[in-house]
Amino acid sequence: MFEIRTDLAVEEKETCTGENKGLKGVSLREWRKASSAIKMTEVVVQDREGARAMGKPEGTYLTMEARDLGWQDEDYHREVSEELAVQLRRMVEKLKVDRAVPAAGPLYVLVVGLGNPSVTPDALGPQVLGNLKVNRSLTPLNKREEPEAVISGIVPGVMAQTGMETAEILRGIIHETEPDLIIAIDALAARSIRRLGTTIQLTDTGIQPGSGVGNHRHSLTADSLGVPVLAVGVPTVVGAAAIVHDTISTMIRTLASHMETRGMGDFLEQLPPDDQYQLICQLLEPEFGSLYVTPPDIDQTVKRLSYTISEGIHLAFYENPQDDRDFLIP
Amino acid sequence: MFEIRTDLAVEEKETCTGENKGLKGVSLREWRKASSAIKMTEVVVQDREGARAMGKPEGTYLTMEARDLGWQDEDYHREVSEELAVQLRRMVEKLKVDRAVPAAGPLYVLVVGLGNPSVTPDALGPQVLGNLKVNRSLTPLNKREEPEAVISGIVPGVMAQTGMETAEILRGIIHETEPDLIIAIDALAARSIRRLGTTIQLTDTGIQPGSGVGNHRHSLTADSLGVPVLAVGVPTVVGAAAIVHDTISTMIRTLASHMETRGMGDFLEQLPPDDQYQLICQLLEPEFGSLYVTPPDIDQTVKRLSYTISEGIHLAFYENPQDDRDFLIP
Amino acid sequence: MFEIRTDLAVEEKETCTGENKGLKGVSLREWRKASSAIKMTEVVVQDREGARAMGKPEGTYLTMEARDLGWQDEDYHREVSEELAVQLRRMVEKLKVDRAVPAAGPLYVLVVGLGNPSVTPDALGPQVLGNLKVNRSLTPLNKREEPEAVISGIVPGVMAQTGMETAEILRGIIHETEPDLIIAIDALAARSIRRLGTTIQLTDTGIQPGSGVGNHRHSLTADSLGVPVLAVGVPTVVGAAAIVHDTISTMIRTLASHMETRGMGDFLEQLPPDDQYQLICQLLEPEFGSLYVTPPDIDQTVKRLSYTISEGIHLAFYENPQDDRDFLIP
Amino acid sequence: MFEIRTDLAVEEKETCTGENKGLKGVSLREWRKASSAIKMTEVVVQDREGARAMGKPEGTYLTMEARDLGWQDEDYHREVSEELAVQLRRMVEKLKVDRAVPAAGPLYVLVVGLGNPSVTPDALGPQVLGNLKVNRSLTPLNKREEPEAVISGIVPGVMAQTGMETAEILRGIIHETEPDLIIAIDALAARSIRRLGTTIQLTDTGIQPGSGVGNHRHSLTADSLGVPVLAVGVPTVVGAAAIVHDTISTMIRTLASHMETRGMGDFLEQLPPDDQYQLICQLLEPEFGSLYVTPPDIDQTVKRLSYTISEGIHLAFYENPQDDRDFLIP
Repeated sequence: MFEIRTDLAVEEKETCTGENKGLKGVSLREWRKASSAIKMTEVVVQDREGARAMGKPEGTYLTMEARDLGWQDEDYHREVSEELAVQLRRMVEKLKVDRAVPAAGPLYVLVVGLGNPSVTPDALGPQVLGNLKVNRSLTPLNKREEPEAVISGIVPGVMAQTGMETAEILRGIIHETEPDLIIAIDALAARSIRRLGTTIQLTDTGIQPGSGVGNHRHSLTADSLGVPVLAVGVPTVVGAAAIVHDTISTMIRTLASHMETRGMGDFLEQLPPDDQYQLICQLLEPEFGSLYVTPPDIDQTVKRLSYTISEGIHLAFYENPQDDRDFLIP
Repeated sequence: MFEIRTDLAVEEKETCTGENKGLKGVSLREWRKASSAIKMTEVVVQDREGARAMGKPEGTYLTMEARDLGWQDEDYHREVSEELAVQLRRMVEKLKVDRAVPAAGPLYVLVVGLGNPSVTPDALGPQVLGNLKVNRSLTPLNKREEPEAVISGIVPGVMAQTGMETAEILRGIIHETEPDLIIAIDALAARSIRRLGTTIQLTDTGIQPGSGVGNHRHSLTADSLGVPVLAVGVPTVVGAAAIVHDTISTMIRTLASHMETRGMGDFLEQLPPDDQYQLICQLLEPEFGSLYVTPPDIDQTVKRLSYTISEGIHLAFYENPQDDRDFLIP
Repeated sequence: MFEIRTDLAVEEKETCTGENKGLKGVSLREWRKASSAIKMTEVVVQDREGARAMGKPEGTYLTMEARDLGWQDEDYHREVSEELAVQLRRMVEKLKVDRAVPAAGPLYVLVVGLGNPSVTPDALGPQVLGNLKVNRSLTPLNKREEPEAVISGIVPGVMAQTGMETAEILRGIIHETEPDLIIAIDALAARSIRRLGTTIQLTDTGIQPGSGVGNHRHSLTADSLGVPVLAVGVPTVVGAAAIVHDTISTMIRTLASHMETRGMGDFLEQLPPDDQYQLICQLLEPEFGSLYVTPPDIDQTVKRLSYTISEGIHLAFYENPQDDRDFLIP
Repeated sequence: MFEIRTDLAVEEKETCTGENKGLKGVSLREWRKASSAIKMTEVVVQDREGARAMGKPEGTYLTMEARDLGWQDEDYHREVSEELAVQLRRMVEKLKVDRAVPAAGPLYVLVVGLGNPSVTPDALGPQVLGNLKVNRSLTPLNKREEPEAVISGIVPGVMAQTGMETAEILRGIIHETEPDLIIAIDALAARSIRRLGTTIQLTDTGIQPGSGVGNHRHSLTADSLGVPVLAVGVPTVVGAAAIVHDTISTMIRTLASHMETRGMGDFLEQLPPDDQYQLICQLLEPEFGSLYVTPPDIDQTVKRLSYTISEGIHLAFYENPQDDRDFLIP
């Protein structure tokens, strides 16, 4: 019942193991491009064991972070768009190798802007779609001029507004228009407020129920939709429950670090997990489940990142970004 | 090629015949409710002959007009919502009798908000959906508490943004969610600027290609979608070509009514239709086809009417409006 | 430095004294209208001592609450609009008696929609202004047809977008257009998540710095603007710091109520206030100051309440609501 | 009474004289930058005689056109932004030489986004302000780090929403914040539909009453505001009256060019101007005055151009664009 959720695999990994320890069935790789401020992290959930430990399905979770720089610099956004394009193409190439999408001919891509356009931190997906250039209606009959990718896009809305599950709407559109691949854009929930607006996650596992800002999804995956789903997300909120949880953890540590209260801190730290869980549940008000925490300048963040992501998709599918740069693997 | 289009059957009827004359295969009925400012007009296209003459498919076109009062009065809007509800229910009852929708059990209705939310006069459909209360996701499992209608809603967007035809998107969603009935809301193009924002048209024929503000539709009818389609529309624009056509007609009449120029007017009036057509085509710049004319306060009109229509749908399906008032048939 | 702020006087009162005890210089009155679900609370800060205790300036703070009913019912919203109109008129009458506004002739009112239109929970003010009917540009030259009130309106924006303080913009507009009275509409921060969207506060003290969602204000009061300021606000967010504070308080109480941990809870409860303050400060991350907590359906709440408030203003100034109903004073 | 208005001086010039002939008191200069698709036209209204002939006040009207290329290319938009920046700086330099603004120290600039944000073709000004980076609230106290320009911004709204004239609002804000210079951004009305979205006009004369999409202005000039006003505008609509006028003119020419009707055409062409005027007035319906014509993809045009213009302002005032490129004067 009680869940401190995060949509970021990189945070889930930290929660499960601490930052440096290994986890069976989960690989972690970090690198930074030469002369770049972007920190890349790849978490691969390799098997069932890893999936169980992480609470996330098998697949690749790639994180692009830029904590230091901030997101004000326009050249920097360009750099992020280019990197996103490179990584999107890599994932598509892998899908071709795996025969999950056709290896030859134009690739039919349906881009989906998840979330509620009228709730600012949930509007990332709809805003990306507002910037997206689609070309499916322009497809030439002439085979020669065939584009590399044929892109369509949809903003399905949220269940409170449509009365339908997003998966239903998408299954219908997929049935009718037969895309090879879905790219789903979504606002994510993070555990840490420092991630808000500074991280992009790209994954080949699609989108799982229960995560994100609203409750607008019901498993958008290759299994549920019949088509591979790449998901691009940016954390824009932290669940209120996460804030409460962090406060309690910090309180316990604080108590343990002071002479007079050390005994209490130690006592609480050494409570069996079940008792800790009990305690936290008592402190969490039921309303907290749906509440979220977000910064006041979230409108600017979402607007800026929506351009970064739409530009990344344009670069990946309409141009041919060169991926000849070396990576430094630390 | 050259077409002065109108989405209003009542205007098409006038164009074909003048206001008072009959047209084979087309019936016309007008009435006004006692102590009401709403003028009702029903045009029924009865057979193929009528359809050919009107350029509109067979079916019923109901117009609610309120030229005199204007649309500022809030009680008046309530009255229009109620009348819209009554007429929607009548059309639904007729569909039940015709076995086009199930006669018993809850009626599954998908409301579709056509048009481009970011172009003001085209935003009527999306704005109605913004006000609409859907209940499909709330449907109780318990048969006893079954509502009379189960409503879902979608804003499919326009082809320039989605790369998909609206009909494709809807066919997909219909395939997946199996509604009994579609109600499509759309901004319409009128012939006369006096109609802008003062008329609601309700029809059981769905929506035909080539009409409306943008080019966002490709026949949304029972034939193309497999489900009956009721369409609710309000004219918010007049095509620029219509303005040009009217100017030329007025000019010819003006010339004919003045001593010095009577000869010219007569000459032009007596030109064979083909030559008149030639002349008009020469005067129409090709760019005019897609341009439209709209008043500067269109944002207020669309906002207000979007409430009138969503309220009409709520009254029709969530409440049970009494239709016991008498009509005066003139 | 550390402040758990609330914009609601009724919450400040509870914090200072608990719900039932008195506070010097502060009067409290509660009532409920016959056959009404609206609970009214009036907090009057009577003198300097009260102002110091409350951290709020002298004046009247009227709260309209509707926790039980919720805000879904449309008739209920009408009732709230009517009550708001009655109370607005009372405050205006008091200003006339006090000679703060002219007693005769039309009253010139400038309605100000504070907040950032692109951040959903901060958009209440701008949305009220989007619904507001202004008549200043329509004022007849003929004295006979003079309206009771001449209303103008402005959405000044937020400092991050304008580079100007709201007070600067308003002082300028007041200097030029010389209104008798300002009515400022704003989204508020509450202490308790149960207040979100269920309470309206009306005050004659204007708006103080440091409160609200963003940082968009710098004292909008009769002192700073030279014109009386009535403020209408609805809490739409809770500061993240308040959530943390509540968690810690609950944790201390929880510890104190369990056998094994009673000693710790007692110990913490009995810490001197300064030490408690120290502890809380250590637990509060600096980023929390600007973060806020808000529910995911905040867009619907803000949209609905913006109509309730604009309608209240219309009723107060364009119609003449009868205030002949009795109040039950418990 | 009857006026076919255009806000573009370059069109007014054509109307007055035809494209190639001179007009007393009005100078015309055209050039194109080497390897650029931007056509520059400068119309200078030099004296009263020119002003009377043009119906526009004395000053410089600079037009940047790009008919051939269209506005789809992103590099092209960058080029336009840079050229706009260069020309803005020139006009500011001229104002410094003329001592209309201070020659030394930071320049205080208030950018004004005119128009109605909820009517798409009128939303250019508000959308530019949505992209604009202001720095007035960030101004350092330290003289050393003084920026070259201190920018603030305001979206004053339209009279139908505020009940105040834009000039009133601006005079107030100017009185309070004392900027050295106003830059007003506005959607314009053109005579020719080919100008829509393809032309930017920059002028040092401010904005005159009676022009533009809505009726939202009442002379925003150095005279009325007490501060120099640079205006940046893009035509997004053509008045319906202009369409009618063009149709009649074309009709007359068409009649004159055909054997059978040549007599009529000649007759009409040779009518005294007053009679021609009479004829046109009879053909213009009174409602046409406020109606406008606009293309269906106006939302994309306005969105794109709002970035081009905000970027031009950023380049002009926050960076230091080099103006060392040669101009070819044809």
